[in-house]
Formats: sequence, C-alpha cells, structure tokens
Amino acid sequence: MNNVDIKTYMQLIGRKARDASNTMAKIDSSYKNIALTEIAASIQKNEKKLLSANKDDLETARGQGLESALIDRLKLTSKGVSNMVEGLLQISALTDPIGKISDLNYRPSGIQIGKMRVPLGVIGIIYEARPNVTADAAGLCIKSGNAAILRGGSEAYNCNQAIAKCVREGLVKSGLPETAVQVLNTTDREAVGELITMKEFVDVIVPRGGKGLIKRVSDEACIPVIKHLDGVCHVYIDEGADLDMSISIADNAKTQRFGTCNTMETLLIHKKIARKILPLLCKIYLNKDVELRGDKFSCAIVEEMVLATEDDWKTEYLAPIISIRIVSSLDQAVEHINSYGSHHTDSIVTEDYARARRFLREVDSSSVMVNASTRFADGFEYGLGAEIGISTDKIHARGPVGLEGLTSEKFIVLGSGQVR
Amino acid sequence: MNNVDIKTYMQLIGRKARDASNTMAKIDSSYKNIALTEIAASIQKNEKKLLSANKDDLETARGQGLESALIDRLKLTSKGVSNMVEGLLQISALTDPIGKISDLNYRPSGIQIGKMRVPLGVIGIIYEARPNVTADAAGLCIKSGNAAILRGGSEAYNCNQAIAKCVREGLVKSGLPETAVQVLNTTDREAVGELITMKEFVDVIVPRGGKGLIKRVSDEACIPVIKHLDGVCHVYIDEGADLDMSISIADNAKTQRFGTCNTMETLLIHKKIARKILPLLCKIYLNKDVELRGDKFSCAIVEEMVLATEDDWKTEYLAPIISIRIVSSLDQAVEHINSYGSHHTDSIVTEDYARARRFLREVDSSSVMVNASTRFADGFEYGLGAEIGISTDKIHARGPVGLEGLTSEKFIVLGSGQVR
Repeated sequence: MNNVDIKTYMQLIGRKARDASNTMAKIDSSYKNIALTEIAASIQKNEKKLLSANKDDLETARGQGLESALIDRLKLTSKGVSNMVEGLLQISALTDPIGKISDLNYRPSGIQIGKMRVPLGVIGIIYEARPNVTADAAGLCIKSGNAAILRGGSEAYNCNQAIAKCVREGLVKSGLPETAVQVLNTTDREAVGELITMKEFVDVIVPRGGKGLIKRVSDEACIPVIKHLDGVCHVYIDEGADLDMSISIADNAKTQRFGTCNTMETLLIHKKIARKILPLLCKIYLNKDVELRGDKFSCAIVEEMVLATEDDWKTEYLAPIISIRIVSSLDQAVEHINSYGSHHTDSIVTEDYARARRFLREVDSSSVMVNASTRFADGFEYGLGAEIGISTDKIHARGPVGLEGLTSEKFIVLGSGQVR
Repeated sequence: MNNVDIKTYMQLIGRKARDASNTMAKIDSSYKNIALTEIAASIQKNEKKLLSANKDDLETARGQGLESALIDRLKLTSKGVSNMVEGLLQISALTDPIGKISDLNYRPSGIQIGKMRVPLGVIGIIYEARPNVTADAAGLCIKSGNAAILRGGSEAYNCNQAIAKCVREGLVKSGLPETAVQVLNTTDREAVGELITMKEFVDVIVPRGGKGLIKRVSDEACIPVIKHLDGVCHVYIDEGADLDMSISIADNAKTQRFGTCNTMETLLIHKKIARKILPLLCKIYLNKDVELRGDKFSCAIVEEMVLATEDDWKTEYLAPIISIRIVSSLDQAVEHINSYGSHHTDSIVTEDYARARRFLREVDSSSVMVNASTRFADGFEYGLGAEIGISTDKIHARGPVGLEGLTSEKFIVLGSGQVR
C-alpha cells in the first residue's frame, strides 16, 4: 500500500473501532465472557494452524538472520497455545470493572454524587515478536469494554493473522461486533504513524517492545501513551537488616531471572552491614556467574569486583551483571534511587519501623517494597489477574496495568429535581 | 530576553521546581497548612499593593483597547482579595490526600499489596486574565505536595507578580522551599513553548483559558495535558417526565448563568411530551431573552423558534441561545449526546427507573446526571473542596479536578522476606 492508501485504510479501521467501542461500552459482562471463552475455544481448535503459521514466520525470521533472542520470543509451542487459552479463560473469570459505582455520597444540596467506572474507548496496542500478545491484549480490551486496534510485529505476521481469525470467530459467535478487535493486516511502519496520531479514533496507545519502539511511539504520538521505559530496580539493605533475609532477597531479586524489568540491577547496602553481607552474597553471585561492579568501598571488600562507572548506576543490564554501592544512610540510599533509578520498583530490607515507613513514602517509584523481592512487581502477583504491561509513567496508570488501567471513571449525579 | 536566554531561564526554573518537588513530596500536612495560612495572611496584608498593581494592569489593558469581557475578568476588587484569602484557608482545611494508603490486601504469597497516593511532581499551569488563579493554583499545588510553575497572562502581569511575592513570603515563613511555587517573570510566548516541552522537569500541564490557548498547548505539548475543551451540555426530558421538574431543570441549566461550561446548550425532548412542555418552557426562555433554535418539529410547536443548522448541535454558545431537538426515543437522545456533545455534562429528567439506569451507563460524558441541573458539575458542588479545572479528557482525571487530580498512586508492597 502507498501512504494515501494506508491513511485511508487506517481511517476506516479507526472509524470501525470507534463504532465498535460504543457498542462494547454497554455490553453485559456475560456476553463479554462468552466471547472470551469462544475465542479460547477457537484458538484451541486451531492449534495446528497457529503452529504452522508460526513455523512460516520462524523460517522467514531465520532466513533474514534475525538474532536468536528474537526468534526465541517469536516461537509458539503447543504449551504456548495452551497458555493463551488459559489466559483468556482467566480474564473471563475476573470481575468486570465496567459500571462499578463507588463513593456515592449525598451532598448538602441533596444530590448524590459518585463515580462510575467506564471503558477508555479505543486502545491501540503496538507490539513486537511474541504472538501471544495478540490473544492477551484482545482479551483484556474486550473484558474492559474497549475496542482494540492491534499492530503486531512484521516477524510474527502469519501467526498474528491466524490468531486474529480466531478472535473474530469468537466475537461473531458471541454476538459482539467483529470489529471490537482489529489486527492490522499491514506491517508498514506508516500504519503505526497513522495509529498514534488518529486522535478522533484512538484514546490511548500501549506500546510493548524494545526501547526503540517505545521511544518512537512516545515521541511521535499525539494520543496519551501508557508506556514502560527502563527497569533500573534497587534493593537497599539497611543497617541492622536480617542477614538471611537480606541475602535471600538480594539473591532472588537479581538471579531468579536476569532479563525481566523487575530484576534488581543495583544493590545498595548500608556501610555498617556491608562487611558482613557482601562476602557471603557475592559468593552466591559468583557461583551464578554474575559479574560484579561496585564503588570503591565495595571493591575493597570483594576482590572479584571491578570498579563501576557513573554509567553503571543508570544501566538496566537485563543480564548477569550487578552494580553495588555502599551508602552511609537511608537518605543517601533514597537519593541514589530517586536520581539514578527509573522509578520502576525498589525494595528496602530492614527491621526498623521508622525507616521502612520513610522508604515507602520517599521513594518515588511505581512499586515500593519492604522486605520483599523486586520480582513481585507483576500483575499476577499483585492480584490484578492479568496485565497489559507495567507503566513507569505517573499519569493515569502507574505500575502493573491490569483491567482497571484500561478504564476511566465518570461522575454520576442522582437528584430529585435539584437546581442551583 | 532572546530565545537562548529564555531557554536557559526556563531550564533553571524547571530544575528548581524539580528539586522543590522532591522536598514537597515528603512534607507533613501541618507545614503545608501553615504555608497556606501564611500566604493567605500575606495576601490580606498586602491588599492595597495588589489592588494598585491590578490598577496598573487595567490601565495598560484599557490603553491597548482590550475587550470589556477580558477587562472584567482581569479586575481585582477588595472582595476578590477576600475570596483568594478564603480560598486558601478552605484548601488548608481539606484532607491531605498525600500518603493515603488504600486497598492493602494480603496475597497468597504472603505479601501485602496496596496503593499509596503520591504527588505528580511538577505542575505547569498556563492561564489568562484572572489574577486569582495565581493564588488558587498555588494553594492546590502546595496542598497536593507538588511544585508549581505558573505562567499567567501578560495582561495581569503586575498583579500576578504581586501575588507571587505573597506566595513566596508565605512559603519562606513556613519553612517550605521558596521555589515550590514559581511565577514566571516573563510573558514571552516562547517561555510557554519551553514549559510545555521540558519533559525532564514538568510532569503535567494544566492550561486554563480560551480555546486558542488550550488548542495551542495540547497541540504542542509533549507532556501530558489536563485540559478542558468544549462544554456542549444537554438536558434530555424523557417521556413521562415530571412537568414541573422538567421545566425547573431545563430553565436552571440554561439560564442560571449563560457563560459557564456546564450550562446546557441543547435541550432534547421526547416527542410524546414535547407539546406539553415546550410552549411553557419556551415562554420562560423568551422572557429571559433566550434565542430559540430548533429542529423542524420544535419549530412547528413554538412559532418564535428559528430552524437550527447542523452546526448548532455542536456549538457551545456561552450565550442566551438554546438549540432544541425533539427525539423519538432514549436511544436517539443518547446517540445525539454521544455524537454531537463534548462529553462534558449531560442530564436526563425522567421518572423511569430502567431508562435512568441506561442513561447513566450509556452516556459517555465526564458527568452524567439524573433529575439534576447540569450546573451542578463543579468541584465545590461535588465536595472536592476546590477545583483546578474540569477535564473533558478520559485519561487520568475526568470531570472536575480537585486535589486528587493532581496526584497519582504508587503500589506499596509489605513483606516479611518473601522471594519468588
């Protein structure tokens, strides 16, 4: 398609999504749940087709010499199909957030005023590689009463189209608008440009993928974006922290998985406890092949450590590397986290009530923890049931974004003829 | 200043605001309340200076031949000063939203997960004419633990600077950072351009003023904007509505004040009740010099009515003009409101339970009402205590924006050593 055609195509997609969103906003929970189970059934039934489409994608990707990490993310297995099915059934079991009324109170004028939860409208989701996002995102948008426009990565084109067909089948079977979820059938970059600027048709954009994608989308979008940037997460081991707990949390936060956004990248440790903990902890790290980079004080304690640069404190390694800094106070720890961190997830290990309370209040991150591993920052662990992503923004949704992040609230007023 | 100087100046302002916001985020309520009462005292004490500065502004404005409506908005009286003082004291009496923890629940893993309300950080407010906004906005930002950068209109320059001095005096006296509220001392348009693009220093922009200002700010900002666009509000009088209540609400919603955003602009009325109500209601409107524009069915009932054009249904008159349309069903009314309206405030007058319930759910506006005048859409009437504006956006804050709209929530996790 040329650019004029793409614009026309996207405007049509946008208009259909807007129309569908008006219907979706008022549909009863039971119909949305039927749609989710129908989509799940269709995906299960078409497993072979999905795997075959994915095989085509994988062959193309290998032919183009794509890097192996990307090919890993692209790969769909029989287990992956079951997970998609399971995910949709889980979403159908979640409480429907739409229409929920809260804080309905009488005012002196006699009116009652409260808030009702409503869908955002049309959600544009731009993602890469993992084909399961097509099913997950469709499920979350349907349950939250929104319409969705999905734009998957070109490398997953065939598989995404196969999943899209299952989604449409489920929507039609349940009597919901087929256009409630539209998966773009072009992978032209120009289509993304249209999607993120169609103010009249799209209410929010959720980019999911590498930093390049997210940067492009946030720079160019003129629609609000719910985005996740870096995950430079910290654990701070406070003076007088429990030794075993400190080691267990610092180990888990770094090594349970290296490549996730809620993995700790920098360990801060109080100077009074550093000599006791660092040798034991670093032995564990070294046994797990974690590279150690530290400030000069840490290097003086652990000889395998190399000196960290200023850049290290700002880096999300997503790899078996850790930076370690010894601090002389809670103030210095909070200052480090707020200035070098990415406002994602940070945890203190402490036995001290007052310092725990201060850490919770003063650390400016989407998740702030006491005596728990940063790895808990996750929609499922938080009980949101599912997540569309983790937001590092402050506006609208912050932290793991579940169904509620795809909704808004309107005021409702109940009167009996009041005037001003 | 030239553009390079303005950029340098704004960067400095931004950096100071960011620093101040870090302090403001952790300050106890009592100190914020002391600051608010000190600012109020300083404004009261300096009444003469404020009125004299305002006199200078008024003279300049008259000299430049500014329109009388603008000069009206610009004028500060002794009563206006008292209102500012009263407003600040009212804000100091509001509950501090910051640090409030909600929904703290145990998860199967043993961690407790909840949400803590936190300031947004730095709020940029761009406004026109009315000098009282300087005091109101400062008060709301201080109470919500934010730092503020205020950019008032050039026509109110002297008065804004005089108020700014009182704000600084109050901040210093209470031991809060003097830079928690900075009022720009330049009225160069370039400064606005910098303010709305300094992503690293400003977290949200609130434009308050005419549509030109709001359009420019939303088009050019690369920071989230909490904005208010049109107020094309509707009252729908349903089949079988109470006659007296219908007339009372439709009268009040249109005529109590013509120039406010929550004034009704279009009246929708069910065909079965139109003949009974329209003659009585239109007589009231005509007595109050309200111009009547209607569809052909309404024109057939009231001879003083002129035929409305397609544009009328989309217009916020802010004037003694009303458009009236007869509809044949609730569906048609909802469809009209959602497609022609501005998603601001819409009300149904009805005695029917099921249709009231449907209207509440299906109308996509920031305030949806049953049997109440649209004029109630207001922060004070809703019990928010004060408002920084009314948002017609869906993301983040919707409807009247009080202290809570200037805050966000972070997740907090309390554990006892849990790992994954």
